[in-house]
Amino acid sequence: MEFITGVNEKETLEISRLLAGGLEGKTVKVNGAVHTIRDMGEVAFVVLRKREGLLQCVYEEGKTKFDLKNLKEASTIEVEGTVKAEERAPGGFEIRLDSIKVLSEPAAPMPIVISKWKLNTSLEANLNNRALALRNIRERAKFRIQEGVVRGFRDFLYSQGFTEIHTPKIGAKSAEGGANLFRLDYFHRPAVLQQSPQFYKQMMVGVFDRVFETAPVFRAEKHNTKRHLNEYTSLDFEMGYIDGFEDIMAMETGFLQYMIALLQKDYARELKILNVTLPKADSIPVVRFDEAKKKVSEKYKRQIRNPYDLEPEEEALIGQYFKEEYDADFVFVTHYPSKKRPFYAMDDPKDPTYTLSFDLLYQGLEITTGGQRIHDYRMLMEKLEKRGMEAEGMEQYLSVFKHGMPPHGGLGIGLERLTMKLIGEDNVRETTLFPRDLSRLEP
Amino acid sequence: MEFITGVNEKETLEISRLLAGGLEGKTVKVNGAVHTIRDMGEVAFVVLRKREGLLQCVYEEGKTKFDLKNLKEASTIEVEGTVKAEERAPGGFEIRLDSIKVLSEPAAPMPIVISKWKLNTSLEANLNNRALALRNIRERAKFRIQEGVVRGFRDFLYSQGFTEIHTPKIGAKSAEGGANLFRLDYFHRPAVLQQSPQFYKQMMVGVFDRVFETAPVFRAEKHNTKRHLNEYTSLDFEMGYIDGFEDIMAMETGFLQYMIALLQKDYARELKILNVTLPKADSIPVVRFDEAKKKVSEKYKRQIRNPYDLEPEEEALIGQYFKEEYDADFVFVTHYPSKKRPFYAMDDPKDPTYTLSFDLLYQGLEITTGGQRIHDYRMLMEKLEKRGMEAEGMEQYLSVFKHGMPPHGGLGIGLERLTMKLIGEDNVRETTLFPRDLSRLEP
Repeated sequence: MEFITGVNEKETLEISRLLAGGLEGKTVKVNGAVHTIRDMGEVAFVVLRKREGLLQCVYEEGKTKFDLKNLKEASTIEVEGTVKAEERAPGGFEIRLDSIKVLSEPAAPMPIVISKWKLNTSLEANLNNRALALRNIRERAKFRIQEGVVRGFRDFLYSQGFTEIHTPKIGAKSAEGGANLFRLDYFHRPAVLQQSPQFYKQMMVGVFDRVFETAPVFRAEKHNTKRHLNEYTSLDFEMGYIDGFEDIMAMETGFLQYMIALLQKDYARELKILNVTLPKADSIPVVRFDEAKKKVSEKYKRQIRNPYDLEPEEEALIGQYFKEEYDADFVFVTHYPSKKRPFYAMDDPKDPTYTLSFDLLYQGLEITTGGQRIHDYRMLMEKLEKRGMEAEGMEQYLSVFKHGMPPHGGLGIGLERLTMKLIGEDNVRETTLFPRDLSRLEP
Repeated sequence: MEFITGVNEKETLEISRLLAGGLEGKTVKVNGAVHTIRDMGEVAFVVLRKREGLLQCVYEEGKTKFDLKNLKEASTIEVEGTVKAEERAPGGFEIRLDSIKVLSEPAAPMPIVISKWKLNTSLEANLNNRALALRNIRERAKFRIQEGVVRGFRDFLYSQGFTEIHTPKIGAKSAEGGANLFRLDYFHRPAVLQQSPQFYKQMMVGVFDRVFETAPVFRAEKHNTKRHLNEYTSLDFEMGYIDGFEDIMAMETGFLQYMIALLQKDYARELKILNVTLPKADSIPVVRFDEAKKKVSEKYKRQIRNPYDLEPEEEALIGQYFKEEYDADFVFVTHYPSKKRPFYAMDDPKDPTYTLSFDLLYQGLEITTGGQRIHDYRMLMEKLEKRGMEAEGMEQYLSVFKHGMPPHGGLGIGLERLTMKLIGEDNVRETTLFPRDLSRLEP
């Protein structure tokens, strides 16, 4: 009987091992995709694309046992060669090739050029050839940064006593009302895709006190802007036993600080590739919604048109204001008007026109909506009634309040938007692997 | 201007802090949900449910500044009291109460009893009152274990150079053909919910070499069994530059070992609550599909009815066989018949009736399907043709092979099934927060 006892050690080396040193003059095996071939006559530079970066290999006529004519870009190969220090190569070394073994070959030339430093295509062409475009070193680096964001979110929340949950995406009703829902047939019953895990995460506060989820949400919104997607990854948390909604903002600030430190530590390579300077989150200003409107109206001589809503331009100006006045990349805008928040938002007891809620703006773009929720059953039922809403279909949600819930609140962060701002892009499709928007359902 | 600088330190203590010691005789503040009240006359035991467990508080008439009559089970409270060693209390200590502050009160008595050690309801009643039933200590412990499984999956794969990806769940076509798909309307275009991230993760192997995703998948299967769900969480990975499909099994074995160690280290409390003995994964036997069938047929005198498929009873017997013969909890069954695997499965060059694929059985239940995939464009097109399948709608998927892909393979693990087996349950609904099956679309 054969047995498997754990991960197979490979003979082929990764770049981090090669960079670790001690291999100068040694013969090594590596594999990778042929990113480019630069034929200089007697020698050729064969650059391999590996998961940790690019690796320069040197083909020498008469020495490398292989006919260069038979090597194609986009092939995957395994090579054997000698490690040699070389200042001009990425990482300061190269591999002088002894032999090349072809693992796979392409059947046609690439429809787009991916081996230049910057992908020289329109966003449209990029997305139409997405799986190929992402082979570009800068393109793929964006999604390594995105990994760091999610990883930071989870690891920070684990450390703060949160439990990770997985809630269903198909449901009979949705968390925040009937608009903007994708509808489907569920074994001959009408169903919807959840636009938020809101109801579920609140219900789970009664079980685990603190919970989070990182999962897709679905919004059938007909917006076609640079910052909207119809499917995106939402980083959600909800926490009980709060003293006020300030606890939620404090937890988010802690996450941002942790995430920024993690990116600096574990994703320095990608930050460098993208030439990213990370924002500061050590101290985030907090301003009331109405005050923020007043401040930008005064400073930028802009009339307040709607006192109950923030227009995107106003958000941008708030971002500008706090950058100019406080050198702040982030700003918490608090106390949004009650009528603009969902029924479960906790109204401010001092003035129920406003809620104990907030948005987090990152350089003038909303990346988080959060706040304290109503935890008292009677208060919740009154609010529903005041809004003329039906309890029907929400019995399970309402039951947790009927049977005791701690004061609590939470937030949702759009992963793609946060990644976009972090790396300085201006279209959320740039930081979505395979975006879904009004016109795009493939690839 | 106000600023937020990071997580708020709380005056209230968590159980781990109380267990850390040094607080005997000290006055402390804690909060929690009133799990039970046992009124003994002059004293009453008020057991608080907190995220880290139960905490015994002692109410003393005349000493605790509060009227016990006003305290209800399922309220959430904040208390102040003195820490006192007490052998018979959970954790070996209790809090003698000075004062009680009520944070919230229930509006009605609980419809099910959750404070007993075991939830004494049918699964049906449990699921109908899911958000309340999960407040039971054993019920919620199952999902802490589940967290450990996912966490172990991710952390292990990060350490092995994998990149985490987020792929769309709404698509124009699905990875593995047209059956069993939920269909929806996407802005007047027909769309489906993905039954697997298969195509996307393969495409991303061309970008990151190694990728994984932990996300929901959707299967409109009309099975109504103890082991099927219509929405579940799939732990998927895919890796390039493999020497054979054994590399995939080796990586999974590494994950299982890492995850088991993580559970022992960080989830010991929950393992104890559920009285779980973890399986052994240090050495997992590997057996060919046809040999496995033969072995159980011989040992258990069972006729082979279909040489190309494993019946659930046969899987159970294979599990029994390897437990009896090798004391193995897991067994890899390899070389499944080609006609039972999807078109992208790599056929065995030695005998194309079989594939270079495997299932992992855990005590006789399939928890993983995986294998090597075809990476050569021409081979893939030939296979499609042989099966009479159309390339239409798969252009994007096929294009990555046309433009060069390394030898690769991967697998998918059903999170709820794996959790179910780990804790010794026999219905996958027990280890799903909010199951979706033929009859259940709520809560």
